[in-house]
Amino acid sequence: MADKQVKKVVLAYSGGLDTSIILKWLQTTYGCEVVTFTADLGQGEELEPARRKAQLLGIRDENIFIEDLREEFVRDYVFPMFRANAQYEGVYLLGTSIARPLIAKKQIEIAEKVGADAVAHGATGKGNDQVRFELGYYALKPDIKVIAPWREWDFRSREALIDFAEKHQIPIAKDKRGEAPFSVDANLLHASSEGKVLEDPAQEVPDYVYSRTLSPEEAPDRPTVITIGFERGDAVSIDGQRMSPATLLARLNQLGHDNGIGRLDLVENRFVGMKSRGMYETPGGTILLPAHRAIESITLDRGAAHLKDELMPRYAELIYNGFWFSPEREMLQALIDRSQEMVTGEVRLKLYKGGVYVIGRQSPNTLYDQELVTFEEGAVAYDHRDAAGFIKLNALRLRTLGQRRKKLGG
Amino acid sequence: MADKQVKKVVLAYSGGLDTSIILKWLQTTYGCEVVTFTADLGQGEELEPARRKAQLLGIRDENIFIEDLREEFVRDYVFPMFRANAQYEGVYLLGTSIARPLIAKKQIEIAEKVGADAVAHGATGKGNDQVRFELGYYALKPDIKVIAPWREWDFRSREALIDFAEKHQIPIAKDKRGEAPFSVDANLLHASSEGKVLEDPAQEVPDYVYSRTLSPEEAPDRPTVITIGFERGDAVSIDGQRMSPATLLARLNQLGHDNGIGRLDLVENRFVGMKSRGMYETPGGTILLPAHRAIESITLDRGAAHLKDELMPRYAELIYNGFWFSPEREMLQALIDRSQEMVTGEVRLKLYKGGVYVIGRQSPNTLYDQELVTFEEGAVAYDHRDAAGFIKLNALRLRTLGQRRKKLGG
Amino acid sequence: MADKQVKKVVLAYSGGLDTSIILKWLQTTYGCEVVTFTADLGQGEELEPARRKAQLLGIRDENIFIEDLREEFVRDYVFPMFRANAQYEGVYLLGTSIARPLIAKKQIEIAEKVGADAVAHGATGKGNDQVRFELGYYALKPDIKVIAPWREWDFRSREALIDFAEKHQIPIAKDKRGEAPFSVDANLLHASSEGKVLEDPAQEVPDYVYSRTLSPEEAPDRPTVITIGFERGDAVSIDGQRMSPATLLARLNQLGHDNGIGRLDLVENRFVGMKSRGMYETPGGTILLPAHRAIESITLDRGAAHLKDELMPRYAELIYNGFWFSPEREMLQALIDRSQEMVTGEVRLKLYKGGVYVIGRQSPNTLYDQELVTFEEGAVAYDHRDAAGFIKLNALRLRTLGQRRKKLGG
Amino acid sequence: MADKQVKKVVLAYSGGLDTSIILKWLQTTYGCEVVTFTADLGQGEELEPARRKAQLLGIRDENIFIEDLREEFVRDYVFPMFRANAQYEGVYLLGTSIARPLIAKKQIEIAEKVGADAVAHGATGKGNDQVRFELGYYALKPDIKVIAPWREWDFRSREALIDFAEKHQIPIAKDKRGEAPFSVDANLLHASSEGKVLEDPAQEVPDYVYSRTLSPEEAPDRPTVITIGFERGDAVSIDGQRMSPATLLARLNQLGHDNGIGRLDLVENRFVGMKSRGMYETPGGTILLPAHRAIESITLDRGAAHLKDELMPRYAELIYNGFWFSPEREMLQALIDRSQEMVTGEVRLKLYKGGVYVIGRQSPNTLYDQELVTFEEGAVAYDHRDAAGFIKLNALRLRTLGQRRKKLGG
Repeated sequence: MADKQVKKVVLAYSGGLDTSIILKWLQTTYGCEVVTFTADLGQGEELEPARRKAQLLGIRDENIFIEDLREEFVRDYVFPMFRANAQYEGVYLLGTSIARPLIAKKQIEIAEKVGADAVAHGATGKGNDQVRFELGYYALKPDIKVIAPWREWDFRSREALIDFAEKHQIPIAKDKRGEAPFSVDANLLHASSEGKVLEDPAQEVPDYVYSRTLSPEEAPDRPTVITIGFERGDAVSIDGQRMSPATLLARLNQLGHDNGIGRLDLVENRFVGMKSRGMYETPGGTILLPAHRAIESITLDRGAAHLKDELMPRYAELIYNGFWFSPEREMLQALIDRSQEMVTGEVRLKLYKGGVYVIGRQSPNTLYDQELVTFEEGAVAYDHRDAAGFIKLNALRLRTLGQRRKKLGG
Repeated sequence: MADKQVKKVVLAYSGGLDTSIILKWLQTTYGCEVVTFTADLGQGEELEPARRKAQLLGIRDENIFIEDLREEFVRDYVFPMFRANAQYEGVYLLGTSIARPLIAKKQIEIAEKVGADAVAHGATGKGNDQVRFELGYYALKPDIKVIAPWREWDFRSREALIDFAEKHQIPIAKDKRGEAPFSVDANLLHASSEGKVLEDPAQEVPDYVYSRTLSPEEAPDRPTVITIGFERGDAVSIDGQRMSPATLLARLNQLGHDNGIGRLDLVENRFVGMKSRGMYETPGGTILLPAHRAIESITLDRGAAHLKDELMPRYAELIYNGFWFSPEREMLQALIDRSQEMVTGEVRLKLYKGGVYVIGRQSPNTLYDQELVTFEEGAVAYDHRDAAGFIKLNALRLRTLGQRRKKLGG
Repeated sequence: MADKQVKKVVLAYSGGLDTSIILKWLQTTYGCEVVTFTADLGQGEELEPARRKAQLLGIRDENIFIEDLREEFVRDYVFPMFRANAQYEGVYLLGTSIARPLIAKKQIEIAEKVGADAVAHGATGKGNDQVRFELGYYALKPDIKVIAPWREWDFRSREALIDFAEKHQIPIAKDKRGEAPFSVDANLLHASSEGKVLEDPAQEVPDYVYSRTLSPEEAPDRPTVITIGFERGDAVSIDGQRMSPATLLARLNQLGHDNGIGRLDLVENRFVGMKSRGMYETPGGTILLPAHRAIESITLDRGAAHLKDELMPRYAELIYNGFWFSPEREMLQALIDRSQEMVTGEVRLKLYKGGVYVIGRQSPNTLYDQELVTFEEGAVAYDHRDAAGFIKLNALRLRTLGQRRKKLGG
Repeated sequence: MADKQVKKVVLAYSGGLDTSIILKWLQTTYGCEVVTFTADLGQGEELEPARRKAQLLGIRDENIFIEDLREEFVRDYVFPMFRANAQYEGVYLLGTSIARPLIAKKQIEIAEKVGADAVAHGATGKGNDQVRFELGYYALKPDIKVIAPWREWDFRSREALIDFAEKHQIPIAKDKRGEAPFSVDANLLHASSEGKVLEDPAQEVPDYVYSRTLSPEEAPDRPTVITIGFERGDAVSIDGQRMSPATLLARLNQLGHDNGIGRLDLVENRFVGMKSRGMYETPGGTILLPAHRAIESITLDRGAAHLKDELMPRYAELIYNGFWFSPEREMLQALIDRSQEMVTGEVRLKLYKGGVYVIGRQSPNTLYDQELVTFEEGAVAYDHRDAAGFIKLNALRLRTLGQRRKKLGG
């Protein structure tokens, strides 16, 4: 709205129909130069077609940016988040939420490089992603202009959009003419689907919606056993084989896929105020979470573990709501990272028909250790008579309360 | 220790070898009258043998108390706790912890009835249960004397105990002579095992330790689909059939058992300060938790849900540590219960080889409702242009921070 | 904006120039019937002039509502908030925030009574009050139309407003022609000032801004000693004299005024995203808070007290942000109220030149009591040898950590 | 208790009667070598007499350790704690608690240097200090032996102690023969008193108990205005004059003393389970706290500030309970320190007869800045029309709740 004075805009461009329409709409509405940014976050699509599509729509080569962000995504966003065991509303692994800040950051970097005065994204006006993108933009470049076409344009229907596309010679795949039965977001951590066929939360998610996992029923009849190695809170190896973050997550995704792991059917509360029903597939993440908890279970002290647990919902909410680049998220991250120094070791897991079962864990830094609880010169650290005093003093205030109750005839 | 002046003691008595030894030890050490209390909490053992055993050990009939507490246990302890979605350290459903306060409460009630001046329990000196029992005793009757034989007596070995038993004509089952390969606690919510064969957390739990569940591999190849009905936060029916709390939980246990649901292998942090490795089977509870979360997902507002989530770890810790009868647990319960008024409806679940999958949920009180987001006279509650302002003001402080960073050349 | 179809609007009307302009603007812009609502919340102004002013502006008698809300305000809003010891950002007693929900509630009640389809308020577009009013309206009547003139009209300057007033024969007091050097909000709990002369946070607040308190320097050279009586968490008497809530708060205000108590110069963070500098005078509240803490100090158990303390910032933020009528505020209130049952007794305070000093406290429900810590039959509740065990078990996990550090050569 | 095999013990030795008795008791009971450690933490006593006293009691020169810890105390303990604005139970500035970990740390360092196998302290068996000392010892050296004479010896009365002293030629000051009317702890941050004459919380603290402050009534009739400079969260100057941490705190203490600032009469909840009444004088700290809050008010973002506020009670409780050397305290410190990078600037305060009033604050890093809220090219960051959308989306969930209530006829 407001002010149409835009000279150059960096668009988060997938190469698909919708962002192609946006590209053209930006050109025609703002009369501005459009710079496209297409990122590989592991969504499973090739990027070169996006380049050709952009060229076709008149974008000059120096204005086309394509980047493989998979390693950065997993190393600097996914893994730090998993150090917190973050789950939104008790279950959601934040696969969509965690990708947005990185895209926003890259758009801003490109904007500064090419001297653009605006950025644009293709998120709709009812969802969380518009918030996540834009909070990222504003945090990193407070004077940037933000264009959110879905909130601005006047297209009232799918047809109107298609008309516009045809009028501007945007190629339209046959199956994109009608409204999709559900919409998908995907990256190396997950795929999510929502909308239309999923809108009635009483109805089971149809099987064709899933793309990243076999169903538990289809998965093999024999369990797969794997070992994940951790260093300082991050996964570094599978079955003894060291891998880069993205390689490792991709491998876990394959293992999850094959064993029917990581499907989640959820009604969640959006930051913008309404409930929505979504379906998530997070095969690798669903394996990684209990593995990380398990290595923490022997390497983290109780005080550290419980503090993390109490703060986790807040941390997850910040990421869900789009506040990755906020002081409070960074403060919580400092607290979390401080705890992970000793979170090193190996966790054995059984994967079987949708289930992930921790069956063993060990660490050079273990706090669970027969020797550890015995102190030098044969003196034992734990004397069970100590328990009597421990209980007595913990009980003291409760006894005082009981005494008062009695005194008051209660 | 301390003071041996005890006239009458109420012992939590299972009828097994260990509490029979305790019974006799109380008689011989304190020269006091022993009152036995044996409760059915759904541990799966008959109670009448305990009566006969007590009689055999010289307990007079009026001093033998046997009670079926299953309904009270589920209605007043398990269900209130599930309203909170309580999980200790992210995963444990608190099956042992939640039973202790009820036993303590009943012992104190009997003590007041029979004029006993002491209570005794059979929990060891290294575990959490001694704390849970004794905090309960002291909270409810601050002047009670507490006898914890495992912390007091001088038996140094299993053999010494067996000798004592033989000397006092306590019958000893053959398989009880040696030390058990693991110890078990069981009630209607769960069975837990720990000790010996489980002590190396790197080693998988042997299959023979499990008693309440088939393994996922043994479970049927076809899913079972069930519907759980909720009213005001508590489960009230399965597949449309109304049941009492204990009946319902028993039915869920059967369903969980058959489908290989509810096994958990865990290293946890005890309140008394060390880590321990346990194995838990909570078949019904493992079904109930996601079902409760699912009915909440459509009936609880975001503010209510997130507040509950943030306070849950604290609430779970209180129960784990034995503070059921504390003002802070009661305050949290008041907060939680306040949120459950509208948590009514039905959840459909698929149970399959260890997995519990929510596949549908509906409620007369749903907050997820196409109509609800539309307000009267066709006015729509959600105008996507509102999102722009929402984002702008949420971003304002982040922009100010960005501006400062820029100004400082950061 | 949007839709100008309004038939009848209930305006929060003070009788002052600004809301009189709003009244006229509503009539001319919306062509709708205006209902005025004027409340006595203890702001210290007579209400009858507001009635005459409304009549003068053409409001029919049956559309003029005037209510004395002082008792309801203190009893149902101020006191419940003080049960929580609520302070926003560590210091602010929320005097403005807590009045808004009550006004909103009354406007909605009147709207339902007279069949109005809209409500309007005079809060500006940069502050928190607009949020507080409107969240209240929407929570209580989700289909209400909300008119916020300051966000909607086109007046660009004070002069334009004055022109409009003159054009419509609205009487203008001489000193209202220019922009005020600061703006004031007042009710029985406090007066606040902000704007213009206060805008530089490095500059001291000029003395003429204060209206409710003598300066500490002007206050008497001798202390005043008072006793406040509490019942179940609420103040009920001063120096033994029982008073209604509003009478009591008014009395504390006088005492605070006379002794130079309750001035606060603050830079705070608004919900709408920027910082603002305000000056608050809360004479009675500044006496009440430490008094309430003091009576809690002997009647609340540690567990209850600490839980309240940890949740207080959240509770205060909810009120500050306007979420009084939200499930999460109500849940927290349930928790807080649950703790106040025994908070009964008396607190003695010394008031002296700006300071409030607790000098004594007593209660029939005290948990601080020599007798209480001694239990029956001469047995002492506290045996200092218990402390050894208490410390040992609390230290166990720290020792284990130390042992690991040593083992790792750290 | 237990094991008397001690070779060399490091005693926290003040040189006073009580620790001299302990010294002798250690020699006679354990037959061990005693090493004395006397620290200057700003308690206001000379240290050389302690050296002579130790010599007199037969301690060899190489076993006498005396250290001036004032700078370390303020820099590494007091200031980090003030970054958190820590107050226990809403008011107590933790003056005693914060000194204990440093003493414990030094004792352990000396123990390692001299090859001692034990440490001892003079704290009683009913208080918090024993816990704080011992948790520190165990955390830093898990295999250390801890001797707590007050919990171990058999002296039943003050007289028995005095007899023991006389028998061992320990010099006894005349006024130390009887029991003190109250006991005192002091360091550079505060002096605290408790016991005997303070035991009835209904009775005002007698004036002679105060040692560090004039009474407000005695303080000058004219205010003192000062400016405190901060860098990265710590105070670095007064009235433009740069000072070391301890010098600065000493200067604030003088200012507080002169202006009657920092008295606190409190009933608090001890970690060991009972309530106690104490009197605290924290003159400098009572000035420092609002000053730190004030500089934070313009340099900390809302998200950072509120997160700190919510975690503060937990952080304060950890310090109070003696968990300075715990992972959770260190994690919280990492979070807090992360927030203080920009907390630089100056705060002006008026000190007057017991009161501390912030009257101005400024910072090169201020987030309160007219320019900051205006963004480049004249575009204004805040458009009040944005508020409408902000409110609408914040209200959405409340409207949905209202709609449900209406639908259900509520």
